[in-house]
Amino acid sequence: MKKKKMISTDILIIGAGPTGLFAVFEAGLLKLKCHIIDALPQPGGQLAELYPKKPIFDIPGFPSVLAGDLVTNLMEQIKQFQPGFTLNEKAETIERQEDGTFIVTTNKGTQHHAKAVAIAGGLGSFEPRKPIIEDLEFYEDKGVEYFVKDPELFRDKRIVIAGGGDSALDWSIFLADVAKEVTLVHRRNEFRGALDSVEKVQELKKQGKINLITPAEVTGIRGAEHVEELDIEQDGGHRTIKTDYFIPLFGLSPKLGAIANWGLEIEKNAIKVNNALDYQTNIEGIYAIGDVNTYPGKLKLILCGFHEATLMCQSVYNKLNPGKKYVLKYTTVSGVDGFDGTRKEAEKQVVKAIE
Amino acid sequence: MKKKKMISTDILIIGAGPTGLFAVFEAGLLKLKCHIIDALPQPGGQLAELYPKKPIFDIPGFPSVLAGDLVTNLMEQIKQFQPGFTLNEKAETIERQEDGTFIVTTNKGTQHHAKAVAIAGGLGSFEPRKPIIEDLEFYEDKGVEYFVKDPELFRDKRIVIAGGGDSALDWSIFLADVAKEVTLVHRRNEFRGALDSVEKVQELKKQGKINLITPAEVTGIRGAEHVEELDIEQDGGHRTIKTDYFIPLFGLSPKLGAIANWGLEIEKNAIKVNNALDYQTNIEGIYAIGDVNTYPGKLKLILCGFHEATLMCQSVYNKLNPGKKYVLKYTTVSGVDGFDGTRKEAEKQVVKAIE
Repeated sequence: MKKKKMISTDILIIGAGPTGLFAVFEAGLLKLKCHIIDALPQPGGQLAELYPKKPIFDIPGFPSVLAGDLVTNLMEQIKQFQPGFTLNEKAETIERQEDGTFIVTTNKGTQHHAKAVAIAGGLGSFEPRKPIIEDLEFYEDKGVEYFVKDPELFRDKRIVIAGGGDSALDWSIFLADVAKEVTLVHRRNEFRGALDSVEKVQELKKQGKINLITPAEVTGIRGAEHVEELDIEQDGGHRTIKTDYFIPLFGLSPKLGAIANWGLEIEKNAIKVNNALDYQTNIEGIYAIGDVNTYPGKLKLILCGFHEATLMCQSVYNKLNPGKKYVLKYTTVSGVDGFDGTRKEAEKQVVKAIE
Repeated sequence: MKKKKMISTDILIIGAGPTGLFAVFEAGLLKLKCHIIDALPQPGGQLAELYPKKPIFDIPGFPSVLAGDLVTNLMEQIKQFQPGFTLNEKAETIERQEDGTFIVTTNKGTQHHAKAVAIAGGLGSFEPRKPIIEDLEFYEDKGVEYFVKDPELFRDKRIVIAGGGDSALDWSIFLADVAKEVTLVHRRNEFRGALDSVEKVQELKKQGKINLITPAEVTGIRGAEHVEELDIEQDGGHRTIKTDYFIPLFGLSPKLGAIANWGLEIEKNAIKVNNALDYQTNIEGIYAIGDVNTYPGKLKLILCGFHEATLMCQSVYNKLNPGKKYVLKYTTVSGVDGFDGTRKEAEKQVVKAIE
């Protein structure tokens, strides 16, 4: 694997969900730079990947906010602090340096050097649920894709999507206009998704833009160096279908992944932290914030992650600036200085004589 | 003092600032009713009283939100849980009952019976800064008013406002259309406030709708049973002015007040709590949340109050329902059932066959 340039930052955040994103803001107020690693192709974590169009009712100050809008708002709130992103990659190894800093390397070899690490990994990185098909792994990146990262990959190709939920429905609809041929395979006749998605697929089927094969399962993959053909079992019968891509969309399952091997104290798949002080783990300089951590009375709520992120940032600041007394305070009074030279502040009062 | 009917609730919240208001929401999710006491005439605490038109930049998910709008949003978010309010009154005494419940009585004698008490008093209740004038206290509620609670009180009356900040400017402007005569007295020629307020006062002065006396100070009050006349020292000279009301608006100063005598552990004017668990004080059943509390690493930020309020509610629920396992969870999944019969929930997925 080719060695890439090392990315340097103050706080390396693992996980671009709401907690990880908001940490960038609080760190920025303290003049600390952040860089975020996430396994998904876009920021937002579960909110962006699993339920962008669903409302959340318990974000303070929002009687209701769509998950996707909350992510958009957070991205807007932090942009002045110019966070870096390493997306589509998973944090894999961590090495503590003699000076107390860390080097974190991803599964794709990207290296990050940071003064502190904040794990904001939510329930874990989302691993696709894989169907049990012989040689499936062999064809990964050779025609088998678990995410649609770039729809253009499928332009004018033949694709087979498997699954019966929103992702399978929505990508079948979207790719019907991109791919040469879209086949949707599902083991039942019934689909589970938003009503308009189900109806849209029905319409596209009638127009001949989506081939629907139900109830059926993909049971085999063939091809020399790339997917060429799939075996499909339908109602006891067997057929094969020529295709360029096979996209199984059976949902995502969260896994703590390689982080579980970092020597952190773990309890019930969550990382133990010192909630009485700063949400630091048993390793100095490594914090865990948001749904990924656990402590007595822990609630897995976004608003709790916001608080934990804030206290983490203050703790990192205090460690890096021993003796300095600066603490996070009301932004209404202090204003916000962006790293991009912007300044946000309340309108100043004037002192003016009245004649 | 006439004894009033006892108000009963699950959680009695002292302080209607953002932390106290949001506690109503989290309590509601757990089916707990809340009642809030506040010394100010309206909910919102500092946000509503001191800087409703100023932007806050560090509320997660809001790149910028006016303090007054945040209060409006929180009131909208909690209305389904029908909180009760005792406004314009201060919590004065607390008595722990044999069954572990509490009776809290205000300075006006209103009694509240609650299963738990959450002090969300911010920096304290806002006491007006009083000018040093002989007999000032005698005229309180007899023509001396430190707040404009109901502008109608001043309709067609003569009023003298003292002060040089936003409150003095804004109320002079507002009451110029209500009172028969508005006089604004300030010890300097210069006023400190929003530019448009200063300009507006200047304009009203030119129109003869506001009498301006500067640099000057009110030094004496006279009247038999009510304010009738004020002494004013201006530039070494002395004059008297007839008036019905004297409204000194010299700002507010936060005081912990009677709560300081409840037997709670206090450090630097803040209440010590167990931040490692549930933000409970040294007295079981009494919690302190938001800016009023202190613990190692405490940050006086609104978003921290939201988290503390949430853990407090869960703790109260667990005490009142020993053995039950219900915990606060994602509202996107659980939905929100209001006490008024409303239900908020994410649109349900459908299961539908495609023919």
